[in-house]
Amino acid sequence: MPLILTETELRECVGLDAKAVEVVEGAFRALAGGDVVMPPILSMAIAQKHGEVDVKTAYVPGLAHFAVKVSPGFFDNPKRGLPSLNGLMLLFDADTGLLAAVLLDNGYLTDIRTAAAGAVAARHLAPRKVRAAGVIGAGLQAELQVKALRLERDFERLLVWARNDASAKAYAARMGEALGLPVDIAASPQEVVRSAQCVVTATPSRTPLIRSEWLHEGLHITAMGSDAPDKNELDPQIIACADRFVCDRVSQSLLLGEMRAARAAGAIEEDFAPPELGQICAGDKPGRRDEAEVTVCDLTGTGVQDTAIASHAFRLATQRGFGTLIG
Amino acid sequence: MPLILTETELRECVGLDAKAVEVVEGAFRALAGGDVVMPPILSMAIAQKHGEVDVKTAYVPGLAHFAVKVSPGFFDNPKRGLPSLNGLMLLFDADTGLLAAVLLDNGYLTDIRTAAAGAVAARHLAPRKVRAAGVIGAGLQAELQVKALRLERDFERLLVWARNDASAKAYAARMGEALGLPVDIAASPQEVVRSAQCVVTATPSRTPLIRSEWLHEGLHITAMGSDAPDKNELDPQIIACADRFVCDRVSQSLLLGEMRAARAAGAIEEDFAPPELGQICAGDKPGRRDEAEVTVCDLTGTGVQDTAIASHAFRLATQRGFGTLIG
Repeated sequence: MPLILTETELRECVGLDAKAVEVVEGAFRALAGGDVVMPPILSMAIAQKHGEVDVKTAYVPGLAHFAVKVSPGFFDNPKRGLPSLNGLMLLFDADTGLLAAVLLDNGYLTDIRTAAAGAVAARHLAPRKVRAAGVIGAGLQAELQVKALRLERDFERLLVWARNDASAKAYAARMGEALGLPVDIAASPQEVVRSAQCVVTATPSRTPLIRSEWLHEGLHITAMGSDAPDKNELDPQIIACADRFVCDRVSQSLLLGEMRAARAAGAIEEDFAPPELGQICAGDKPGRRDEAEVTVCDLTGTGVQDTAIASHAFRLATQRGFGTLIG
Repeated sequence: MPLILTETELRECVGLDAKAVEVVEGAFRALAGGDVVMPPILSMAIAQKHGEVDVKTAYVPGLAHFAVKVSPGFFDNPKRGLPSLNGLMLLFDADTGLLAAVLLDNGYLTDIRTAAAGAVAARHLAPRKVRAAGVIGAGLQAELQVKALRLERDFERLLVWARNDASAKAYAARMGEALGLPVDIAASPQEVVRSAQCVVTATPSRTPLIRSEWLHEGLHITAMGSDAPDKNELDPQIIACADRFVCDRVSQSLLLGEMRAARAAGAIEEDFAPPELGQICAGDKPGRRDEAEVTVCDLTGTGVQDTAIASHAFRLATQRGFGTLIG
């Protein structure tokens, strides 16, 4: 009988913490190993409803389960007082294919595994010393990405820029309290980049927010917003001229991420083959080599992260006796 | 809060009956309309485990919900005393993308919607008068397909052939009792085809079971077994020389069904464009035109059938107050 877990139960047992980062890093490491099976994302656009549904999955050798995640996004929902994004994860036994659990997380576990990937990127690519961190965007991921970065780097100050002033103000107040740090609202994305050693972009932007002229010694950027063929956060030249450009999955970055825009703009060649984050986690490729490098990481979100976080959640929920067996 | 429905509840409210055939026919009709969104099947093969997972989905305009079906098949399960096939369906609100129900059917609804498609094919393509029906295979679908055919044609006799004699005998005994008809075990597939006006193939065969020389006036064949690139039930010449060849979805038949084998054998040209079953249901293309035609229908299984049967099941279960709300 499968175990049904609610969002409330999942929030109570899974947090954005060192353990979540560890399981997501393990998934990236496995992805570099080659025995992972991760098919292309199934994507269904329902234009009449201004909606879409994505399905992601991955089998990770060594894990007892694999997840199938279904993520609907219906963009007229806010008009009805409902969130745009939703969804759930299904966890299957990797030996028998039997359904082990239904994780009714409404996207919570996706939020955690996405932020955890940001922490993994920062662990390997951010300069060791980050005095000021910066963030472009003021939504939930802008918050979680900075909290994830905080697990890896002990910065003293945060700068935020968002298109909407009120959102930026609310973000600064919220995060100042949560982190116990000064959070300043920057006048422009440029100010954020110039002042920070580590910057996260967490927006649904369709035009570049960061220009290549602003790059400076010892900067790391994690761009996590682009996950669709019409999104783009970084000037295409940044992909070409960073000392090290890394992405979570080359095939996905070419379809949905910053490499797509860079290739469309002619900034990178057909044979441009950057390292994947998992290869760095596995030690197959180097991470940051010195404090002066300019590093950039593009995250599009992968099925291995879903399998990792759902397995983690199931383990924690089972330990605590959470959930309802139905079947 | 989503409604969780168990297999027991679903079996109690959903049957292989006229209503199930009607909703599946409606889905095929919608598929011909052009506003259906049905992405290619997501398929993940886990070779190390001798397993695979398929995900199917379709948005059907006019239905209040759409389904996402996850079907694992783990072929070492019988050694452990477990069924190879499993899975569940998720039902989402078509306006908001919110999860409406989790249908823990373990493949039951797939069995029903697959058999119902056979009934739809027979409705439009079998001769009006079927005295003897024939079936190749003795598994669950061999049983359900014949029961579905019985909803459409009032045959007096059934012939069965299966590779395994004991299975054929057990099938004949079981079906004789269920249908109240004589069920004869044929000595060969040829005897089945020669003696029957309507034949269903329901096997996982990788080599053709029916040869084109055996076709005769007034025959209809529904081939429902091939759903993978290594399966094939019909001699490729049958696709080319039947008076009317029809399939559920051309793009799928070319990848997974009888058209794949026929094209590989050079029996059909690149531009061979048969009618789809939905076009016949919608009246856009003719069904059987006279009692003498030789007709063939290839069924690979489509996401619209899943959305139709899951919507139907949800309606019936809700009417009866079944299920558990969790979330």
